[in-house]
Amino acid sequence: MTNASVVVLGAAGFIGRHVARAFAGRGCRVLGIGHGQWTDSEWRQWGLSGWADADIGIQALDRLIDGSSPRAIVHCGGSGAVSFSYAHPLEDFQRATQSTAAVLEWIRLNYRDTCRFVLVSSAAVYGDQGDSNATENSVRTPISPYGVHKVAAEALCESYSRFFAVSSSIVRLFSVYGEGLRKQLLWDALNKFRAGQNQFFGTGNELRDWIHVSDASELLALAGLSAQPTFEVYNGGFEHASTSEILSQLAVAFGFTDAVVFNGETHMGNPRRLTSDCGHARRLLNWEPTIGLNEGVHRYAEWFKKQGDMTSRCSE
Amino acid sequence: MTNASVVVLGAAGFIGRHVARAFAGRGCRVLGIGHGQWTDSEWRQWGLSGWADADIGIQALDRLIDGSSPRAIVHCGGSGAVSFSYAHPLEDFQRATQSTAAVLEWIRLNYRDTCRFVLVSSAAVYGDQGDSNATENSVRTPISPYGVHKVAAEALCESYSRFFAVSSSIVRLFSVYGEGLRKQLLWDALNKFRAGQNQFFGTGNELRDWIHVSDASELLALAGLSAQPTFEVYNGGFEHASTSEILSQLAVAFGFTDAVVFNGETHMGNPRRLTSDCGHARRLLNWEPTIGLNEGVHRYAEWFKKQGDMTSRCSE
Repeated sequence: MTNASVVVLGAAGFIGRHVARAFAGRGCRVLGIGHGQWTDSEWRQWGLSGWADADIGIQALDRLIDGSSPRAIVHCGGSGAVSFSYAHPLEDFQRATQSTAAVLEWIRLNYRDTCRFVLVSSAAVYGDQGDSNATENSVRTPISPYGVHKVAAEALCESYSRFFAVSSSIVRLFSVYGEGLRKQLLWDALNKFRAGQNQFFGTGNELRDWIHVSDASELLALAGLSAQPTFEVYNGGFEHASTSEILSQLAVAFGFTDAVVFNGETHMGNPRRLTSDCGHARRLLNWEPTIGLNEGVHRYAEWFKKQGDMTSRCSE
Repeated sequence: MTNASVVVLGAAGFIGRHVARAFAGRGCRVLGIGHGQWTDSEWRQWGLSGWADADIGIQALDRLIDGSSPRAIVHCGGSGAVSFSYAHPLEDFQRATQSTAAVLEWIRLNYRDTCRFVLVSSAAVYGDQGDSNATENSVRTPISPYGVHKVAAEALCESYSRFFAVSSSIVRLFSVYGEGLRKQLLWDALNKFRAGQNQFFGTGNELRDWIHVSDASELLALAGLSAQPTFEVYNGGFEHASTSEILSQLAVAFGFTDAVVFNGETHMGNPRRLTSDCGHARRLLNWEPTIGLNEGVHRYAEWFKKQGDMTSRCSE
């Protein structure tokens, strides 16, 4: 598995940089495309051998791939946020769906027989599944523009696989967290704890499937490198926990002693439960997530404490 | 209903120009965007008051719409051909799906409360429905890239309607034919008849739902102008006939006396049956198609005869 060349799209992002590191750890030559303000030494630290600061698309791929046949291209680009898709639906579509179409076409025209495409999709494609764990075969009924755009990107993968024999894997990640994440619930929570605040939006009963970014990145690397059928879909989640449970654990890890309280509100696009059955990835890829919620939350809180004055600058 | 301003996208195409005429016949001021080599007097003859030779998108809309709030935008653009989507899948996606995303965004930002979007979709979204007539609620299982891209465009309409209150109607046209069509089965057949050929691809038993372009255009105009719920889907078909039946009728209309024969082959993306139940459009829009197959086929054959030396130049 060594010396294979792989490309990570959106490599400067939270998940992208961990995916680059996961591939590099397997001996791959990793090239990255995306937008991000980092220095040469920074992206090299994350395992990249080359980096193009560019929109994800055919031009950037042509420029970066200098004849070295890539074995896998993992698309970690996109807004990564349901809220962004409400504010900027066209831009979210462009980042999630349009970019996927361009990359699939590039593979079709250049490396159809040798390169696998891996799409980082999202639990958001499932919408509200009631009291069930979503399986890869569950009907997709997205309840946000973000979810709609991911479903459309998935449809393109399936289409290119079926009609043009371009191999692809779709990985539907659930609630990914971990060192480096500077947005979303856990990041906001630590900033609140630091400020002495204990009030949160929601009921506290929202049930989610949490997965540490290292485990998610391992799954994406396995999906890119393992011998697999032409088209596969994998759920990527690990431990189920309610918002109330994970915030309580995080408070303990951070040393915040007040009880966490919720305002009881709900909002559109945010189902009460979003949990997965991830047996397929475990069986087919021998993927085994290793970072449980307790360990992961402690690691995240420790990382956060080290950020010091960085926090206000990087908060989104 | 008079004096409303409407925009036809892909107005130089086979369906687009008939739609422009249908709106003009209702007293609308009709503006067109698309690509097509026609003179000012030609597009004026088809009912247009303004024409922009441009890619369908935000820039062209900004340029063409000079503050006159459009009541409807009908998207007739796109390749219109399953075969094109196999040869040029990215371009087909761009024409069908990407353009739809851009137009919906433009309406959201400018005329959300006053302008309805009408998407010309296709029976291809249904794929193979076995021995059933497709209804608007049938599961969509496209069997070509073309169908996949139309499904994605439809999903964007539904998303913009649901999350941003942009009104839209989807019209899934079945086998549209009529004067001006210079491709597909009936055009090819007339050219063969003229050359004395009687051999055709297929089994002859492929069952389709034929609709004359005038009836299809009436449906699209009604969908754009009638007061309707925020989101509606309509099938647009009229008379069921097998390939063998319609070609026999066409041969009679053209004066071709040999028996039509078929090679018995089938190909991917071409289901044995693709027929519709169109009751929804009749009930909700009071739409009533008027050109039966016998009349329509005769009109088309008469039009073809008048093309004379044009045919070889325009044949695709």
